Amino acid sequence: MSADLDDLSAARQRIAAAYDPSLLEEAGHRLSGLLAAHLAEAQRSEGPVLPWVDPPEAVRDAVAVLHGSMPAGASGGTAETFGRLVQLMLDRGLNLHDPRYIGHQVPAPLPLAGLFDAVGSVTNQCMAIYEMGPWATAVERAMVAELGQLIGWAPDSFAGAVTHGGSLANLTGLLTARNVALGDAWEQGLEASDTAAHSMGAPARLPVLVAHADAHYSVARAAGILGLGSRQIVRVGLDERGRMDPQQLDAELARLHFEGRPVVAVVACACATPTGAFDRLADIAAVCRRHEVWLHVDAAHGGAALLSELHRHLLAGIELADSVVWDAHKMLFVPALCAFVLYRDRARGFDAFHQDAPYLFDPAAPGLAEYDSGVRTMECTKRAAAFGLWGAWSLFGRQLFADMVDVTFALGRIFHERLVEADDFVPLHEPECNIVVFRHIPGALRDAAPERVGTFQLELRRRLIESGEFYIVPSKYHGVGALRATLINPLTTPEHLDRLMEALRHHGRGLLRD
Amino acid sequence: MSADLDDLSAARQRIAAAYDPSLLEEAGHRLSGLLAAHLAEAQRSEGPVLPWVDPPEAVRDAVAVLHGSMPAGASGGTAETFGRLVQLMLDRGLNLHDPRYIGHQVPAPLPLAGLFDAVGSVTNQCMAIYEMGPWATAVERAMVAELGQLIGWAPDSFAGAVTHGGSLANLTGLLTARNVALGDAWEQGLEASDTAAHSMGAPARLPVLVAHADAHYSVARAAGILGLGSRQIVRVGLDERGRMDPQQLDAELARLHFEGRPVVAVVACACATPTGAFDRLADIAAVCRRHEVWLHVDAAHGGAALLSELHRHLLAGIELADSVVWDAHKMLFVPALCAFVLYRDRARGFDAFHQDAPYLFDPAAPGLAEYDSGVRTMECTKRAAAFGLWGAWSLFGRQLFADMVDVTFALGRIFHERLVEADDFVPLHEPECNIVVFRHIPGALRDAAPERVGTFQLELRRRLIESGEFYIVPSKYHGVGALRATLINPLTTPEHLDRLMEALRHHGRGLLRD
Repeated sequence: MSADLDDLSAARQRIAAAYDPSLLEEAGHRLSGLLAAHLAEAQRSEGPVLPWVDPPEAVRDAVAVLHGSMPAGASGGTAETFGRLVQLMLDRGLNLHDPRYIGHQVPAPLPLAGLFDAVGSVTNQCMAIYEMGPWATAVERAMVAELGQLIGWAPDSFAGAVTHGGSLANLTGLLTARNVALGDAWEQGLEASDTAAHSMGAPARLPVLVAHADAHYSVARAAGILGLGSRQIVRVGLDERGRMDPQQLDAELARLHFEGRPVVAVVACACATPTGAFDRLADIAAVCRRHEVWLHVDAAHGGAALLSELHRHLLAGIELADSVVWDAHKMLFVPALCAFVLYRDRARGFDAFHQDAPYLFDPAAPGLAEYDSGVRTMECTKRAAAFGLWGAWSLFGRQLFADMVDVTFALGRIFHERLVEADDFVPLHEPECNIVVFRHIPGALRDAAPERVGTFQLELRRRLIESGEFYIVPSKYHGVGALRATLINPLTTPEHLDRLMEALRHHGRGLLRD
Repeated sequence: MSADLDDLSAARQRIAAAYDPSLLEEAGHRLSGLLAAHLAEAQRSEGPVLPWVDPPEAVRDAVAVLHGSMPAGASGGTAETFGRLVQLMLDRGLNLHDPRYIGHQVPAPLPLAGLFDAVGSVTNQCMAIYEMGPWATAVERAMVAELGQLIGWAPDSFAGAVTHGGSLANLTGLLTARNVALGDAWEQGLEASDTAAHSMGAPARLPVLVAHADAHYSVARAAGILGLGSRQIVRVGLDERGRMDPQQLDAELARLHFEGRPVVAVVACACATPTGAFDRLADIAAVCRRHEVWLHVDAAHGGAALLSELHRHLLAGIELADSVVWDAHKMLFVPALCAFVLYRDRARGFDAFHQDAPYLFDPAAPGLAEYDSGVRTMECTKRAAAFGLWGAWSLFGRQLFADMVDVTFALGRIFHERLVEADDFVPLHEPECNIVVFRHIPGALRDAAPERVGTFQLELRRRLIESGEFYIVPSKYHGVGALRATLINPLTTPEHLDRLMEALRHHGRGLLRD
């Protein structure tokens, strides 16, 4: 009954047209031209950094196009319409390649890393099992090997995988720690596990996560997701520079041991989100070893400092961690998402998950399971998420990554100096990297209450970003609103920082007037 | 101390060269030509479907290139070297665009969907908060609106988000169900939650997930991750066609109610992985409503049938689900990963997570939180994962997606008929979609023991895929090895299916000889 298909001949023609290689080539050429022109304009700061549009209006526009209302006239062939859609997407996005983008811990990425990613997208090379993505798997393994050795681990002694972001990487690492700490929790569930509180008749003996007081919110989230409870986190106090205090950690672990509470893991930061403070990992690790608890280091942002001769000292001791998270889509300047979770002990690489999927894992070739990426990460099918990093590293060499760390960290220090020198700006910490938290306090606010000063920062920022002139982010410091800049476009210059301060003054005056 | 930067002038030059827009343009043009040539070759089946290389060798090659050993001579400029790297990536990947790829539930994607994704990659348009990715957010919302209405929900009455794969989408939906069912489990943890077993003094009252007996392995995984326990799943028996039996479901729910065990959710499948069976959702939903339990429908594969006039009846009743998972990177033919988790009740869209990240969510603009994608998914920073789908849908119109469902489902039926007609093939079920499970049983094995027949299938498949001639996957049916094909390249034809059967016969003879 191939008649089934005969009835579908028009459908098959439409499909063949959509899969036509010459259409791909023509569309690809248009895309290249549009992307390059857009990059050049962004680098020259010709448009707004952020083309602000109120969200409901943006959604209406996206729906209208989806329903056939093409931007700027719909005539022309498919490739031409494709080009119009691309231009619309470029016009409406945040321009991270504009050097006035000084915002989140999301970089202006290496443009060619995005093209390497496109190889994976167009061909749909995926991971899960080796045979689905032999090259994607090889590339993932090569990058895991490289990053693990940068951490200081011996070849072949460690394990790791790439996943879709730092939050998932933290979740995966902490799931592994939970499974190791709590025996059969994976199979039985937390309520029925060997270590469950009620089995000892002591409700206070709940398992606990111990974390840097300012650990990224994904750590509390992980506790919520994993069934530990977002409130079952003991937050360890910080020193005056925002680093976890090893002595307080020691005291907390001793107290928890005394109370009989199982410790799933200690979470240290390299660096912590608020001000980019690097924990003293060697000291932290020594405490963890003494108490025999799992040390998880969230080096999502700071891991890249390992590539820099100037800055790798910030991570001294990271080789003692049991698990490490390192986002390549932060300071290795590749597009989102490309995050690594790494385990010091190779055998731990399989401890996050236990499963059986007969249609996936082939009993006819058991030796291949070692290469099946899907057994290590939350994802089953997984993008070739390391293509961009592997490609850019292969093409430009590792020096470029050290360069980008050195330049952006230097910009952080330079910005700090500018803030120190200015009467109407207050830097809130000495930056260890490229994160700088500060306030603009014009004369009129010098004696204002903290709440007023904090609110002013947040309102000022919103005015600034909606103007399209610069992009920075809001934060809090000691509970009071502040401004936060991450120097994460390596083409930003000190002159841009001067202009940022001028723009803040200008919008501050406007805000005080209104 | 801008001297910092003066010392880094060589670094800044290297960076500027890597970010040069003209390099992006030249590399993009090379990429377009290479991708188009590769697509044409794959469509003409000129190379192997799978260029098999043993994993350790592949990893060695990826490491060597990373360390500077360029493929095929390293001369030429950066764009030329870029082209060589791209060619290597293309040469070493599985060719899903070859019509002899009839494998996993991972499609030969629309090539232009990959290019739309590249817009997101090169510019790094991300989500988390609206202002980071205004267009990415708008596009996500537009697609959520479209898919929810296809399900049958009234505009603005539902919620949803895109995430990195069906496993994460299932995890997210079931986390929401857990939080709804178990009160304060998110904050307190499962052991201390209101409903915790020990608080009632009855260890048997553990919370439970009730699932289709053949639910995807990510469901059991979710139970492990969420602290429920992978063994705390009650698997509901199936009817003769592999569909969850509503009467057995009713009986299980009654039993669990009697035992006082909280039911987190019922997981139904549309369709189930093993043979592509669609649960009778209307009947299942009626049972769930009677018992007042959350219905989660894993429509990762089958959701797309909603677009087809011919096949949408398979999903009748899906509008009664509380949560639905729908992978666009399966039967909507976009590259991985683009999965949707959708909630019938709009208010549930925020129930998966509870967090506070002051540097992210801006108190100066509280109305925007509704548009902050990061509060709905496991990811914090998230790729513009819906760009490919939105772009392809806008460009080609929704009819093309219906076409691809109709053609590939027809191919599934045609293949089944071919198997029925052949003496030496045994189809193991009547296909409801484009998934076909079968065995090749040559005369010599007609009277062999089931184990022998099963092992033969798995060894036969390995031989076939390593030959590069076809790509299909292994499975089990009633515990015995089988072959599994997913017709998920819409350019596959009935002639390819004839040749697949011939290739299996050929390799089967070789296997019996050796």
